[in-house]
Amino acid sequence: MQATKSYAAQSPTTPLAPFNFERREPGPHDVQIEILYCGVCHSDIHQVRDEWGGSIYPMVPGHEIVGRITRVGDQVKKFKVGDLAGVGCFVDSCRVCDNCKAGIEQYCEDGMVGTYNGREKGTQAPTYGGYSTQIVVDEQYTLTVSDKLPLEGVAPLLCAGITTYSPLRYLNVGKGHRVGVLGLGGLGHMGVKFAAAFGAEVTMLSTSASKEADARRLGAHHFLLTKDAAAMKARENYFDFILNTVSANHDYSPYLQLLRTNGTMIVVGAPSVPSEAPAFDLIMKRRSIMGSLIGGIKETQEMLDFCADHNIVSDVEVIPIQQINEAYERVIKGDVRYRFVIDIASLKSES
Amino acid sequence: MQATKSYAAQSPTTPLAPFNFERREPGPHDVQIEILYCGVCHSDIHQVRDEWGGSIYPMVPGHEIVGRITRVGDQVKKFKVGDLAGVGCFVDSCRVCDNCKAGIEQYCEDGMVGTYNGREKGTQAPTYGGYSTQIVVDEQYTLTVSDKLPLEGVAPLLCAGITTYSPLRYLNVGKGHRVGVLGLGGLGHMGVKFAAAFGAEVTMLSTSASKEADARRLGAHHFLLTKDAAAMKARENYFDFILNTVSANHDYSPYLQLLRTNGTMIVVGAPSVPSEAPAFDLIMKRRSIMGSLIGGIKETQEMLDFCADHNIVSDVEVIPIQQINEAYERVIKGDVRYRFVIDIASLKSES
Repeated sequence: MQATKSYAAQSPTTPLAPFNFERREPGPHDVQIEILYCGVCHSDIHQVRDEWGGSIYPMVPGHEIVGRITRVGDQVKKFKVGDLAGVGCFVDSCRVCDNCKAGIEQYCEDGMVGTYNGREKGTQAPTYGGYSTQIVVDEQYTLTVSDKLPLEGVAPLLCAGITTYSPLRYLNVGKGHRVGVLGLGGLGHMGVKFAAAFGAEVTMLSTSASKEADARRLGAHHFLLTKDAAAMKARENYFDFILNTVSANHDYSPYLQLLRTNGTMIVVGAPSVPSEAPAFDLIMKRRSIMGSLIGGIKETQEMLDFCADHNIVSDVEVIPIQQINEAYERVIKGDVRYRFVIDIASLKSES
Repeated sequence: MQATKSYAAQSPTTPLAPFNFERREPGPHDVQIEILYCGVCHSDIHQVRDEWGGSIYPMVPGHEIVGRITRVGDQVKKFKVGDLAGVGCFVDSCRVCDNCKAGIEQYCEDGMVGTYNGREKGTQAPTYGGYSTQIVVDEQYTLTVSDKLPLEGVAPLLCAGITTYSPLRYLNVGKGHRVGVLGLGGLGHMGVKFAAAFGAEVTMLSTSASKEADARRLGAHHFLLTKDAAAMKARENYFDFILNTVSANHDYSPYLQLLRTNGTMIVVGAPSVPSEAPAFDLIMKRRSIMGSLIGGIKETQEMLDFCADHNIVSDVEVIPIQQINEAYERVIKGDVRYRFVIDIASLKSES
């Protein structure tokens, strides 16, 4: 067993604070990763505060992990000591259901094992995430990370990146398509980058005119201020796809009306109150609403390789772990461009 | 101009009553049809009572029309006097937008011209529907009807039939798919017949156990009582498609949860209050909700030909037009198996 430093929540109402625990010894198929950076996802806050129910404490959040391999089990084939590696939202799944066999382990019929706030297959030990100095993961659930990109910008690709990449690929979004991206945050800014990289015409949809310059810098070709009724009216029946990244409560109707015939709204944000979907908005133009959850291991690797080839990373603010509680408050206010990433060196050097 | 008898509503609150008006003389591309049967669609009631807004009075409802050609314009190619013919939900569209050119005139960007409660292109004269002795329609918007099938059972195919046929075809539903049909009414009973005819495994989903025998007679292989929590639980993540024909207010969540990964709920019923669509239900299994509206002329003809080849008609109760107001009350109560069809002979013989 290996002593590991981390920041953990002890209950839904306590701030994150230092917590020491032990990682398992790497098994024959495991790699041990020294964590270098870990992104801060809004879902970390939801789970720390038990807003989705069923949270397990103490909880060490973090599922946007990049680091360097420090040990490998004797059956490990993909990695050697010294390689860069990444871990995303899950570290295991049943491996035998149709979805696992199809490489979409995120939809595992037995439930994927979350990188944190989950339970290991077999032992049922709680899983602890990336706000920690090291992690031990089966190599099958570990991603290869290129050395071409700045690692702090790579970390958020493991969740924010794949969450937006996967549905755009699933729906074959590309040249000739008009894509609207709703909400410019951790997910939205990656959605803009990917949709533009795939060749689509990209419009940023936002309530805030102050986002326009940044949206264009990220790759958006157009900007649509959603508070401007005339501008919204002018874009009715316009988009082939709208990538809806908003997790605040909202109704779908005003955005559905922007979709052309056969258009699809992709939902990747999860409001706590169900959104209203008026049947008429769907029926009158054969429009769809589709949900999508992160991506499988194979597709996540494909996304990381695509990013390395196309020089795509997340725009991040790097923080020491000691600022994590303040960072959470700023995430809730949307006051981050566009992802906080913890420099885990700050944790290692804590006494 | 040609004297035409009909039943019309003079306002949202008056019952349907006899009304005489004049049809236009057939133009070079028009056919004149002596109406034999006209189906009674729930949307007739919504529009007669102005429940969707914008109703035009007097209103002669009816968009499930079958009859016999009595005159043809001198440019007409598809029809000759004596042929059987059908008219569905629309009688014209812009003909030049991308959707019209693609043969999906129901999604015409300029708006299709409804068979009733619409306005003719050019003249802006109100359109009057099939609760009448005759109708004049451009041959391009007129369907060919086989003489193999009982005509009273063919009439509802023009709306209830194509509304369920079209989305099942669009999504390539067939052998190897598990299809749930939610709601056993005018639309649902056609959905069961088509899904079964396409080779899918069909389950009727209903709140009423009394529907089971009929559902099986119509072609359903299984029956799922939606009030039975244990039975619903056992069918979680089961269906590839759910055809949701319910127009009463309801939430989508319990039915979304029955869809397997990548499954689609097809919405063809339009509740007056928007349904709630919880994002988690969509996201966790990459599920979709898709709306669909009737079908284009080409596909409607394909559907009619398919029905003639496969001996498919609607199950109907034939009524004289003098019973239309009572029939409306029974439609609202769901007390019809499964479509009222007006025998227009009863209108012709009125003094």
